[in-house]
This record gives sequence, C-alpha cells and structure tokens, in this order.
Amino acid sequence: MQVRDGAGYHSESKAKEYKHVCKRACQRAVDQLKAGALAVEAVAAALVELEDSPFTNAGMGSNLNLSGEIECDASIMDGKSLQYGAVGAISGIKNPVLVANRLLSEAQKGKLSAGRIPPCFLVGLGAHEWAIGHGIPPCPSEKMATKFSLSAYKRNKRKMEVAEEMDTGRNQTKKKRLSAENHSGCLDTVGAVVVDLEGNVAAAVSSGGLAMKHPGRVGQAAHYGCGCWAENACNMNSYSTAVSTSGCGEHLIRTMLARECSAAMQSEDAHQALLEAMQNKFISSPFLASEDRVLGGVIVLRCCRCVEAQQSQNIQGILVEFLWSHTTESMCVGYMSAQDSKAKTHISRLPPGTIPGQSLAIEGGVCRLMSVAE
Amino acid sequence: MQVRDGAGYHSESKAKEYKHVCKRACQRAVDQLKAGALAVEAVAAALVELEDSPFTNAGMGSNLNLSGEIECDASIMDGKSLQYGAVGAISGIKNPVLVANRLLSEAQKGKLSAGRIPPCFLVGLGAHEWAIGHGIPPCPSEKMATKFSLSAYKRNKRKMEVAEEMDTGRNQTKKKRLSAENHSGCLDTVGAVVVDLEGNVAAAVSSGGLAMKHPGRVGQAAHYGCGCWAENACNMNSYSTAVSTSGCGEHLIRTMLARECSAAMQSEDAHQALLEAMQNKFISSPFLASEDRVLGGVIVLRCCRCVEAQQSQNIQGILVEFLWSHTTESMCVGYMSAQDSKAKTHISRLPPGTIPGQSLAIEGGVCRLMSVAE
Repeated sequence: MQVRDGAGYHSESKAKEYKHVCKRACQRAVDQLKAGALAVEAVAAALVELEDSPFTNAGMGSNLNLSGEIECDASIMDGKSLQYGAVGAISGIKNPVLVANRLLSEAQKGKLSAGRIPPCFLVGLGAHEWAIGHGIPPCPSEKMATKFSLSAYKRNKRKMEVAEEMDTGRNQTKKKRLSAENHSGCLDTVGAVVVDLEGNVAAAVSSGGLAMKHPGRVGQAAHYGCGCWAENACNMNSYSTAVSTSGCGEHLIRTMLARECSAAMQSEDAHQALLEAMQNKFISSPFLASEDRVLGGVIVLRCCRCVEAQQSQNIQGILVEFLWSHTTESMCVGYMSAQDSKAKTHISRLPPGTIPGQSLAIEGGVCRLMSVAE
Repeated sequence: MQVRDGAGYHSESKAKEYKHVCKRACQRAVDQLKAGALAVEAVAAALVELEDSPFTNAGMGSNLNLSGEIECDASIMDGKSLQYGAVGAISGIKNPVLVANRLLSEAQKGKLSAGRIPPCFLVGLGAHEWAIGHGIPPCPSEKMATKFSLSAYKRNKRKMEVAEEMDTGRNQTKKKRLSAENHSGCLDTVGAVVVDLEGNVAAAVSSGGLAMKHPGRVGQAAHYGCGCWAENACNMNSYSTAVSTSGCGEHLIRTMLARECSAAMQSEDAHQALLEAMQNKFISSPFLASEDRVLGGVIVLRCCRCVEAQQSQNIQGILVEFLWSHTTESMCVGYMSAQDSKAKTHISRLPPGTIPGQSLAIEGGVCRLMSVAE
C-alpha cells in the first residue's frame, strides 16, 4: 500500500510531521489487510488517519474557503466491484472519506425503495444530512479548523486585499510576486492506493480544496476519473491499477488525470508509461494550453499475478509496482507491504533548477507479495 | 445543430409538446449562428429554450427531490478552448446552463486576485450565491415547479410509501410492478450539440435529476466527461466531436459516456463506432455489470472540413454527421442547419419487442455546410 500526503511545497520543518502521518496511515492500512480486510476497507482506514492529522489539507485542518468555512471533497473507488462513491463541498463531517465509502457500500446493496437508483455523488447540505442519516456523527466546524488553518486564512485574506487594491494598477510588480507566493501554498490533499492479499486494488482521495476557494467549489477529489481510479485486471486489462491524484483541482479535472494514468499503466514499461502520461496528458495537455504552470502529483500502483515453480513448491504471488510523479516542488509519499515491519517514507522533490508546473519528478519501486500455494 | 429532449418514455400525447420545444430550441441556436455567434453561445441559447419549457426535466418543471425541492445540474463545454463549466444541485435559478456558461467564460479570463484559480464546478448554495454575484437573477423555487411536477411528486411519494410498506414482505409481486413503473418515468433531461460556421463545436446538458433523488445528489449533467463533451479537431483528432447524454445519471457517470462516445467518433465509420460504443462501453460495460437495465441516450455530432473544386470556384465546406442512439424506450430529437428553413424533429423508439435497458436504437444523417471561398 502507498499513501500520499499532497503535492505542493514541503518545508524541511514540516517534512518530519508529514512523514509521521504517512507512516501511521501505511501502518493502519497494513494492519487492516493483515486482519483480512479488502483493499477498499484498508484504503479507507489509511485515509481516516491522513484526514485526522491537523497537518494535512483534508478533514481536520482543511483549508478555509472564502467565507472562512471548511468544505471538503472525497472519493473512493473499488477496483473489484468498480463501484465508486464521492462527496463534494461537505461540511461538519470529520472524515469525508467515510461518507464516500458509505455511498459506495450502500450502492452495492442495489436499488432503493420504489426502484430508485442509489446516488454515487452527493454534495453540500444534502451530503451532510445523508451522512447523519446513515449514522456518521457530525463534527462542529470550529473543531475542524486549526490554529494553523485559521492563521493561514487571515494571511491569505490580507494577501487578497492587497492584490485587489493593486488591481487598480498601482504596483504590478509586487502583485506578481504575491501571486507566485500563493501558488506554492497548501495543496496538501491526501490519497492512498492499496492492493490486498487477493490482488484487489482500491484508491481514495480527500481534500479541503484550494485555500480561499469560492463556497460550493468542488475539486478533483470529488470528480469521477480525476481524483482516484481503481480497476482490477480483467479480459481487456492485464494489470490491476490504482491511482490517486493531488494538486490544483481544476487542472486535474480537465485532464482527468487519475483515469489517464490508470489507462497508461496497461503498457509494458510502467515507468516510461507514467512519464509519458504526465508529460503528454498533463504538462502539455491541450486541455491546459492556456495555463503557464500545471500543478499536480499522482501515486500509482499496478500489479499482476505471478507464479514461480521453486523446487517442490509452487510459489504464487503478486508482483506490485508502485510509482509516484509530481510537477509540484515536492510530494511526500509513504509505502509499506504486509511483509515489511514498518513503512518507508520519502519527500520527493523536483530536480534543482527545474520549474514547478513545467517539469516533473518520477520515482518508484517494485515488490513481490508471495505465498506458498497449497 | 442538434437538440435532444431527454431519453425516457414519450407518450403519443406528450410527443407533440416535445417536438415543439425541440423545434424552438433549434431555431434559437440557428438564429444565433446566423448572427455570427460561436458554437458555445448557440448551444447555451438552445439550452435556455429547453430549460424554459415546463414539459422538460430541466430548469422550469424539473423533477422534485425527496424533500419536494428542485435542485438542478448543468454543464457546457467549448470544443475550441476546451473550457468547461458546471453547476450541481443548484436551486432558485431559472437557467442553470447560464451559470455553467458564465463559469466557463470567467475561467477564460484567467486567474482571480492573488493568483487564485477560477472554479470550473460549483454546487449547492455556493453556486447559487456565485450566480447572483455575477448578475444572474434568482428565481423563487415555487415558480419553477409546475402543476405536472407537483402532482408527479405526490404520486411518487405515495408509490414510495406503498413500496416501503411492502418491504415488510406482504406483497412482493405488486412491489415489482411499481418499481418497473417508476423506471420508465421522467428522465427527460435536455441537451444540445452545435457546430458553428467556423467549424467549432460545443455541447451542453441540463437536468432536474431523477425524481425523488436525495437532496444534494448530482447526476451526469454536472459531471465532467459524463454529461457533455466537445473537442475541436487537432493534431491527434481528425474530427471535431460533440456529445450530450441523458438517462440514468449514475449509469452515465460510471461509464463516462459522453467522453467515450466522443473518443469512439475518431474512427472512420461513425455509425458503426457509435453502435459499438453504446454496446460495449454502455450496455455491456464492466462498470455496470450489476445493473439489469442500463438506461441512457446520446446525441452526437462530428464534422471535418472538406474542399471541392467545382468549375472555377473552390467550394469550402464542413461535412457534418449527426447521430443519436438510446437504450430507453424513446428519445425526442430535433436538428437543423443554417441552410434549413425550419427544424426537423423525430421521436426515436426502440424496435418493437426489444427490452429497454438491454437493446438500443441508432439513427442519424449527414449534411454539408458550404461556402464559396474567396
């Protein structure tokens, strides 16, 4: 399993906190998997841990919107059933991913009374009420804001006021500088991708959205095909794939980055395929031709079954490749398999001298999950 | 240009009304095009006409949700700029497509103050407030409900109560019949696809959503890639394509039908390509494996430039193919070119003896828009 703590800018001082959160999330998912949970349950458990951290822009400590409120987006996809659940602009819920997950599992139960089709995507107050109606407890908004998110809100508000004053034309140079500063800000949405011991994959994502967003704005984290994607291997696809994205929601929506990366992962060389997808379908996408800087990051997992005959035993296993890539200055990732005693974490950074939004970093690894066939 | 008045069940008595609305919408778009409007403006104008009709499930006369309220979804995409705008679960706005269109045009102006990225998707109260802030007038909800939508709400509410009573197990046969009845109900969302005289394409869709939906439920009409798609020809694509979908939102979301049909339209035989897309990517989609009936319809337009040398003149033109297909019992379509004096309309029906949700109808035509090159 692999988790991600947002693509954005991670200062050295914050790096330690981010790594800790990623480690805990990995551990939690692996604990679930060892207890027999399916991938979709494990990925939800990892997301809860990430949302609960006040350092991430998801759940507790989410960015505040223009009105000083917290509105969250989250979604989850199960590669086995291909079911999907999402909530957008939801307030007063500590763990938005649990509402998305509940939508997914309710949809699996089939139709509602009088043949009505269950929803896969709920937003705003309606989403909040549905959650409460399904036993998910409300959380007062003031408990979800942190000292950090409140002071960031005040700072951003002041920046906007200064920028708007300057829109009258008095100081264009200073305006540009301020804009650039804002860009490198909090895009620290969280996500995870998981493969379970049966080889099922799942992916999830959760976000407080861009700082100072308009109320009601929904980002990629609640957009089908954009925030997360998971698809088990089938007739048409030899690999199971799971993807979770973070960054600037509008860029990730218009390029449908999660689904594009998942589709790319069916070609043989995973590293090359992801590199080309990030370059051609994201940085140079015709859908973002007017953008000077295209900001985002992905974590990707793909796997296939493998069997090896060794001496008298048939060793069955799953070959898992995990990769990450980002165009933001940095991205914090963690990963762990059920065979590891603890999670590894890493802050990936763009190569020195490259420009965020125009260049990319890409890294990854491979592991084998083995079991002796009876 | 081509408009669609929902995929669902159209009784003979209603057919006349539907045809009238489609004709007016076609005429309105063509009037705009003749006055020099771009495709995206013309498609918005057609949608306004369709939303304003009390007979369609969009804008005025939309289905009521579980709480007896109207919440609308709409989106629009411009094939030239590839910009996109959408609103979900918006209340108190007569023409949701105009809010989506305004989001699209505001995004084209570039960043907001302090470098903030403009939203492409707004939902609920936030969307309503943004609309009012951008000069779109509010409309009292009670004015948007019609005698028909209110009586349908009462009827549906009673059906649900009966069905829920029977969930206790007293009368399974009657329950099944009621469920089936509900299914053939109001899926009459509206959409349109347009090519302008420069060869730019645009698509839009608007919907009141499923009757008795949960408050906050967002359907395909506000989902990127699912409700509408428009993409001008470019290096990679020889055809410009525009698609608009209607039917059961959850089915159209999970199959991303608009984008799938658009992608399919790049192969040579448009009719065959659409047939295969509807069969393989919709009816038999692995994403809907658990659904017994897959309900939806699409209108599709594709075009390419053509030049013919005739005598001493070079005749430049655009070859336009327009198609429609649906798995619902019927779908009402209208189409008109700038060369026609009036729109043609047609109620397409499944062949006799076939089962809605498991079979499909497909039809279409071709026209040439010609102009003498200077």
